[in-house]
Amino acid sequence: MKIGLDVLGGDYAPDSTITGAIEAQKILQDDQRLVLFGDHDDTVERLKQAGADPDNFDFIHAPDVIGMHEHPTKAISQKPNSSIAKGFEFLKDGKIDSFSSAGNTGAMLVGSMFSVKTIPGVLRPAIATNVPKIKSGYGILLDVGANADCKPEMLNQFALLGSLYAQHVYGLNNPKVGLLNIGEEEEKGNNLTISTYPLLKENSSINFIGNTEGRDLFTDLADVYVCDGFTGNVVLKLAESFYVVTLKKGMKDDFFDRFNYERYGGSPILGVNAPVIIGHGISTPEAIKNMVLLSRDMIESNFIDIIKSAFN
Amino acid sequence: MKIGLDVLGGDYAPDSTITGAIEAQKILQDDQRLVLFGDHDDTVERLKQAGADPDNFDFIHAPDVIGMHEHPTKAISQKPNSSIAKGFEFLKDGKIDSFSSAGNTGAMLVGSMFSVKTIPGVLRPAIATNVPKIKSGYGILLDVGANADCKPEMLNQFALLGSLYAQHVYGLNNPKVGLLNIGEEEEKGNNLTISTYPLLKENSSINFIGNTEGRDLFTDLADVYVCDGFTGNVVLKLAESFYVVTLKKGMKDDFFDRFNYERYGGSPILGVNAPVIIGHGISTPEAIKNMVLLSRDMIESNFIDIIKSAFN
Repeated sequence: MKIGLDVLGGDYAPDSTITGAIEAQKILQDDQRLVLFGDHDDTVERLKQAGADPDNFDFIHAPDVIGMHEHPTKAISQKPNSSIAKGFEFLKDGKIDSFSSAGNTGAMLVGSMFSVKTIPGVLRPAIATNVPKIKSGYGILLDVGANADCKPEMLNQFALLGSLYAQHVYGLNNPKVGLLNIGEEEEKGNNLTISTYPLLKENSSINFIGNTEGRDLFTDLADVYVCDGFTGNVVLKLAESFYVVTLKKGMKDDFFDRFNYERYGGSPILGVNAPVIIGHGISTPEAIKNMVLLSRDMIESNFIDIIKSAFN
Repeated sequence: MKIGLDVLGGDYAPDSTITGAIEAQKILQDDQRLVLFGDHDDTVERLKQAGADPDNFDFIHAPDVIGMHEHPTKAISQKPNSSIAKGFEFLKDGKIDSFSSAGNTGAMLVGSMFSVKTIPGVLRPAIATNVPKIKSGYGILLDVGANADCKPEMLNQFALLGSLYAQHVYGLNNPKVGLLNIGEEEEKGNNLTISTYPLLKENSSINFIGNTEGRDLFTDLADVYVCDGFTGNVVLKLAESFYVVTLKKGMKDDFFDRFNYERYGGSPILGVNAPVIIGHGISTPEAIKNMVLLSRDMIESNFIDIIKSAFN
């Protein structure tokens, strides 16, 4: 398999991306090749300086950078030699099996949808993220930002996408799906969740356990929490800020540690024709390493074929 | 002034409500009378047992209880002798100057809207809550659950309601108002926030500072965070769950302590014709005491007249 990585994406690129790539490569099997998208000579030079053997990597020369605040659609079309545009070109042509980047999130979304394209039957892809459980392990929350406005049918699909992700990539058996809402009872909610509830209830492909609330997100009540991308994004950023507070206050705790995005590497875009993972802008080498390993897990699990079958 | 309190509302009523009332009464001035709505003889007996002088209180006999899970509208009309129905009857007739309860939130909302009624010009009342700032003090978040679906015009009004509350009840000078959103830029958001932004920008009655994100909620970026009641309710319950985790883990910290609802007593319903405060279902005597003191502050500040003038 060929695992594509954007060497130029992220606030600390290329230092942290190359260091992360080196660490990941040590863990990968021989037939799992890392393909680095960035400035060829610079990347090779940096690998050598870090004591790594460039022969252990593949390289695609893509020296241009899409900045964090550039307009996604414009940037992708106007910078064909950017690491992100090149990555999606190769992913679309099947020359790599996954692509990940800690760069411009919007460009990653645009690249996924317009280049790799949405899987037939999927209305809209969703971005999933890990939410730590107080006891141990992780739950999945989606959508966390790809779709600010959603329809009930979309949330019903997110439930299946998240469920399959939890099951096949995270090994959770028969994952419990909860609708993130503002009351326990079926009739509670806003127009969106009230209309979504019956769809989830009738969806025989998921293990729907009913409504969940903000206070349930870190409990074992559900494994997959489904919401619109606006709510999910507010929740995600709020949760991150708590983690930052505990860090600043020097609080050490296993639960808080699991908020650390570095541990799980990144957030996949579920529902497109290839594994695509978005890393946090401030990704460290550890985060990059785990983003590569998550890419490997998504390829190994044949996750895309599973999604295709489910939505066929 | 006459401060109405529901003795029968809340999971630990009437023990915690009566103990809280006794503590509050010790702080109140002679012309600030607490009016207790509940079973007359039982309330008097409990006050005596606790060593308090019943002459320091007024009593309205209202022995029926609206349970936490009763249907609000039905319960209020079918239980005219319930403490909540009686409280709103007295509040509507001007026999008390405020009413607060840790009982059924829905019944408190219904009572506010159908008995005391919305202030002319206010589209919909909103529930406001305190959010602690990391450095010190509190910000205000609204709506946290009165309106699951909102229109831009409603959010624009919430901004003014929250702003006046922060200014006149919490003494914050020229409070900064932020729109809770999923990006910093003006064009970011869902349909609701994108349409709300220009209204806030043009609203000369508030100090609008732009979009804020989930990660900003506990910072000094804004003093008043405006959102729809669905988002606000999810955020509120999520934040509470963090506080509970830090409690369970024995983490002591001034910032986390300020999450404790007991400190500020309750959440006011802003935009109705009298001060109405909803307490947490698990309200302790300390919470009840502070709910009474918040009622006093809202009466003393002539908050309702200020709102009426602003929306005239």
